Amino acid sequence: MTYTLVLLRHGESEWNAKNLFTGWVDVPLNDKGRAEGIRAGELIRDAGVLPDVVHTSLLRRAINTATAALDVADRHWIPVKRSWRLNERHYGALQGKNKKETLEAYGEEQFMLWRRSFDVPPPPIDDDDPWSQAGDPRYADLGDELPRTECLKDVIARFLPYWESAIVPDLRAGQTVLVAAHGNSLRALVKHLDGISDADIAGLNIPTGMPLVYELDDDLQPTVPGGRYLDPEAAAEAAAAVANQGR
Amino acid sequence: MTYTLVLLRHGESEWNAKNLFTGWVDVPLNDKGRAEGIRAGELIRDAGVLPDVVHTSLLRRAINTATAALDVADRHWIPVKRSWRLNERHYGALQGKNKKETLEAYGEEQFMLWRRSFDVPPPPIDDDDPWSQAGDPRYADLGDELPRTECLKDVIARFLPYWESAIVPDLRAGQTVLVAAHGNSLRALVKHLDGISDADIAGLNIPTGMPLVYELDDDLQPTVPGGRYLDPEAAAEAAAAVANQGR
Repeated sequence: MTYTLVLLRHGESEWNAKNLFTGWVDVPLNDKGRAEGIRAGELIRDAGVLPDVVHTSLLRRAINTATAALDVADRHWIPVKRSWRLNERHYGALQGKNKKETLEAYGEEQFMLWRRSFDVPPPPIDDDDPWSQAGDPRYADLGDELPRTECLKDVIARFLPYWESAIVPDLRAGQTVLVAAHGNSLRALVKHLDGISDADIAGLNIPTGMPLVYELDDDLQPTVPGGRYLDPEAAAEAAAAVANQGR
Repeated sequence: MTYTLVLLRHGESEWNAKNLFTGWVDVPLNDKGRAEGIRAGELIRDAGVLPDVVHTSLLRRAINTATAALDVADRHWIPVKRSWRLNERHYGALQGKNKKETLEAYGEEQFMLWRRSFDVPPPPIDDDDPWSQAGDPRYADLGDELPRTECLKDVIARFLPYWESAIVPDLRAGQTVLVAAHGNSLRALVKHLDGISDADIAGLNIPTGMPLVYELDDDLQPTVPGGRYLDPEAAAEAAAAVANQGR
C-alpha cells in the first residue's frame, strides 16, 4: 500500500514575470500561468493520477492554478481545503520590491541571504505598508500569529502542523491528495519528505506548473526520493531558469 | 440578528444556448455564462454582501460560476463545500434531448408536465445511455441513491437534508453563505424558505447569474418574502425569458 501525493506550484503570476518579490501579496496569474495550470491538468489527466481532494493556500495564484488543472482533469468536483499555512513565504519588507533592484541595492551576499538563507528573514513589513496583510479579512483569525516576515524555517514551522493534522489524514484515508501551493511552502514539504538538510535545501528549486508526484510508503517515506515530475524534461529546464532569477 | 444567504444560479451553459435538457450532464459554461459569473461577482462586491463560505453542486457550470464571481469579489479564498444534493434536477431520459423537438414530439401537455409538474418525473435514463451518470466517479458513494430521473418533489427530498445539516449550521454560525447551484435545486430552496405551495412553485423561475439575497430571521424565515435581487431589473427581464424556453 502506498499513498499518492501530487505537488503543484502555481503557474507564473503577473509579478513573477515582472521580477518582483511577491510573498503574501495576492497577485493573479498571467496568461502564461493560466496556460501552465491547464497544462498541469492535462499531465495529471493523462497520467491518471487523479486527485480525490485538493489543499490550497489562500492566494489566488495557487487557487486558480488548481482550479484550471482540476477542470481539465475532470476533477473540479472534488473536496477543497484551504489554509494560510500553505501560503508562500512572507517576504517581509521586500514584498513589492524588484528583485534585480534589490540585488543591486544590497549586493549579492545580502540578496542571497534573504532569498536562500534557512533562518534569516528579511526585515519585517510595516502594517501600513501598501503590501502588508494586516487588516486582510482572510487572516483575521490569526491575530498575533500573522507573519510580518518569514525565513524558510518559519515556513516549515507553520506548514508542518497542517501537514500532520489535515493532509496526512487524507492520505491515510487512501485519497490521492493534490497540494496546490508555492515555491517555498512546497520546498518546506519536500525538505520534510526527503529529509533534506538545512544547508542543502537552499539548492532546491521547484518549477511552476509542473505536477510532482510522490508515492509514500506506510511510514510516509518517499518510495522514490525527490518524487517524479510528470513532465521531467520540462521540469529540469524550468528548475534551471528559477535558479537564475534576479540575475 | 439576521442571517444572510445569497443564491446564485449558474450562468448560461453551452446546452442552455442550444436549448437541450441538461440535468446532471456536466456541461461547461459558454462565454455568456462566464461573463454572467463575473457580473455576479461585481454585484456581490459592490453590494458588500461578501460570502464567508460557498456551497456548490458537483457540476462545473455552478462551480465555475461561483469561482468567477468569488474571484471578482476578492473572496476566492473562502471555504468551499460541495454536494450532489445541490445538483440540478435529474432530467431522466430527456437529458441530451432538444427542448423544442421534445415539445413537438410529445405535445404541450406532456412537455409542460415533465418540465413543471411537482411530482411527475420524466422516464428514467438507462445506465448505458451516453448521458447517464452511472459509473461517474463523483457519484460512486451514492450506490442505489443515484437518481435516474427526478421531479421537483424528489429534488426537495434530497436537497433539504443538506440544507439542514450543512447550510443552516453555517448560517447559525453567523456566516454569509453563498449557494451556487441550479434552476431546480434553488427552486426547491426558495419553495422551502418562502413556503410556496406545490401548485404555485410551477410559476417560479430563477434567472441565471443573478445574485438573490435572503435575510433570514431567527426562525430562518425571510424578512422580505422572495428575497431581493442585487440587480432587480435585469432579474425581472431574465425571469421572463426563462419562462419562454422551449417556445
